[in-house]
Amino acid sequence: MVRLAISESEHKRRMEHVRKTLAERKLDALYLTSGVSFFYLTGYSYIATERPAALIIPADGEITFMGPLLEIDHIPLKTRLIKNIKTYPDYPGKKHPIDYFAKFLKDMGLANKRIGTDNMAGAGGIWGYSGPPITKKLPKAKFVLAKGVIQNMRLIKSEEEIELIRESAKWANLAHSLLQEYTEPGLWDFDVAIAASHEASMTMKKALGPDYEPQRWGRHPASAGFRGQVGEMSAIPHSIATKRSMRDGDVLVTGAGADVGGYSCELERTMILGEPTVKQQKYFEAMLKAQEEAFKTLKPNAKCSSVDKATAKVFKKAGLERLMRHHTGHGLGLEGHEPPWLDVGNHAVLKPGMVVSCEPGIYEPGFSGFRHSDTILITKDGAEIITYYPRDLESLTIQA
Amino acid sequence: MVRLAISESEHKRRMEHVRKTLAERKLDALYLTSGVSFFYLTGYSYIATERPAALIIPADGEITFMGPLLEIDHIPLKTRLIKNIKTYPDYPGKKHPIDYFAKFLKDMGLANKRIGTDNMAGAGGIWGYSGPPITKKLPKAKFVLAKGVIQNMRLIKSEEEIELIRESAKWANLAHSLLQEYTEPGLWDFDVAIAASHEASMTMKKALGPDYEPQRWGRHPASAGFRGQVGEMSAIPHSIATKRSMRDGDVLVTGAGADVGGYSCELERTMILGEPTVKQQKYFEAMLKAQEEAFKTLKPNAKCSSVDKATAKVFKKAGLERLMRHHTGHGLGLEGHEPPWLDVGNHAVLKPGMVVSCEPGIYEPGFSGFRHSDTILITKDGAEIITYYPRDLESLTIQA
Repeated sequence: MVRLAISESEHKRRMEHVRKTLAERKLDALYLTSGVSFFYLTGYSYIATERPAALIIPADGEITFMGPLLEIDHIPLKTRLIKNIKTYPDYPGKKHPIDYFAKFLKDMGLANKRIGTDNMAGAGGIWGYSGPPITKKLPKAKFVLAKGVIQNMRLIKSEEEIELIRESAKWANLAHSLLQEYTEPGLWDFDVAIAASHEASMTMKKALGPDYEPQRWGRHPASAGFRGQVGEMSAIPHSIATKRSMRDGDVLVTGAGADVGGYSCELERTMILGEPTVKQQKYFEAMLKAQEEAFKTLKPNAKCSSVDKATAKVFKKAGLERLMRHHTGHGLGLEGHEPPWLDVGNHAVLKPGMVVSCEPGIYEPGFSGFRHSDTILITKDGAEIITYYPRDLESLTIQA
Repeated sequence: MVRLAISESEHKRRMEHVRKTLAERKLDALYLTSGVSFFYLTGYSYIATERPAALIIPADGEITFMGPLLEIDHIPLKTRLIKNIKTYPDYPGKKHPIDYFAKFLKDMGLANKRIGTDNMAGAGGIWGYSGPPITKKLPKAKFVLAKGVIQNMRLIKSEEEIELIRESAKWANLAHSLLQEYTEPGLWDFDVAIAASHEASMTMKKALGPDYEPQRWGRHPASAGFRGQVGEMSAIPHSIATKRSMRDGDVLVTGAGADVGGYSCELERTMILGEPTVKQQKYFEAMLKAQEEAFKTLKPNAKCSSVDKATAKVFKKAGLERLMRHHTGHGLGLEGHEPPWLDVGNHAVLKPGMVVSCEPGIYEPGFSGFRHSDTILITKDGAEIITYYPRDLESLTIQA
């Protein structure tokens, strides 16, 4: 059977690792506010809103969820690892959620203990939330910022995580194939994106069967699109939309992914609509060269900064260094961007099991942008490129 | 012409209001880290990542963006209000972004001034970001938490904002109509959702013309779906997905919206697939009654808590109070949830121009959930229900 989610036994291993870290750091509990961490440790997805929620992992004692009443029936359907569910009616409430949380922690015997947390406020704090920090409500407890506990675990992907990312690459590849197939002059970029994402998602669901369940709320299960990087707007790395239709001569920068058990690969390509001009060819080839040079540097014990330096060297040699707008890549898996950063300022070394994007780009305002992104797994003796969509100019040229 | 975005003159009025507030609060500048606030004040959309960004509004002096290099060419295309753009190469960088920010603020003469901020860390801090707080880097400056400056402005919607939300309601209605039309036993909920959202988005684009530009990244311009609330999973208010197809007898809880200039209404319905059972009818009618009673309480100078009390009263009378899982509603506009909260603990009063959801719900685990949500504008002498999709059981029953 295809793996569609992280197993319960892996979640248990993760939880054991957390407890080992708590012992090492002499912490009596971990207080997490990030919904991504809830999912990582238990498989339960929480839609983050203004309503505070926290997962408490005591050094010994049962794993406890503190959060809004509306999650009470949800959690047992998603995980067996959370043993206690403690709720408040809603936010802001007659009594503030943070006051409930303080009471719950007291009841758990943590009022005067050493508690690691990913957030000194004790609440995610988005969407118009306001409230006092938990640290003020439990003045005898010693709160310690310990964001790294989960972040460090997530840096190295397990076999199961790699399986999910590999599966994701397959459906991202399908979505991207359809995106390229459907692209033609005169169409609105969103139209092509939605059509390709719809068909890819349906095919993925039919292929993977009824047990396939998307975890990323509000997104297509498998998706491909342009994020507004069409024609001259392709020069804006984080453009969102463009007002005009696609036309002959446009450079198009794409992005594709697929949600498999909450994990996704990253796949991006530069496509040319119509016959590439000499300048487009020159920029495309420089970008491709930079990516290839970066690939060569991706291996265990290489510094992250060395990857970024390798791409800058290529662009410098081509006289295009001034068109760089970002570093070479970032870790990925559960979130869009994660550590490690393939950045000139990051001297940490790559290790087997790390999964990173490799995406050097150049962007000339008023002209176009050029960037491919691939998902790379660092292996024992080198690296494996997980995404496999063609990278060469000929394959990515669409006859208009 | 249809209004598709907030005008520059309104952005200027908002900026003037901010400066007036700065004077009142004796602040020398406002330091904002929220991308939603950037958009609200200038019309420029920033995709938030681990890369810190901030908008600086000095009491007198030019509006300044501090952020990653990759936004440098984007901002001038989106707004004329940001006069200075100061960037760092990337995160984490050879020199940390917060060190750049400290330097930029010094250069602006703010090193020993009183600065209001929405975030004492000085950075949004998502996706694996870590860094020292800006307060440590500018020890002579006096930072003051001033999250309310923008939040209070957003509480009362302007004529332009209301126009956009009204326009959004039209396309949400289309998306929802198609969702209902396409729903049938045997289909996967995502299939129906994606098909309806695709067609509604394309129709909306064709109707609104080339100037229509979505602002919400990664979403359908117009969308409708189930968020996993299918059959017994409809009892989970924030379910994300369901593993099974829709079938005869299912209660379905929907959600629809449309992005018009970054604003959206909220439209949700409870639909029944097949002939409603007696129990389904009873719960549906109780929910509808609760919403109707809540509608009656929505008017200027009414306490937010009174709305929530009105719905609880209906459910209590029907003997269904134990099935409540959340309060009656929330403000909306730019974000999914905003103040004011229609919550029993919120005694603030409603004012003309506030836009709120009205969505009392009941949820019985193992059976089903029941919730409609409508978007309500508080007017001078009462309230206007902006969303107008049918609410009665007959209209929402789908013959299987």
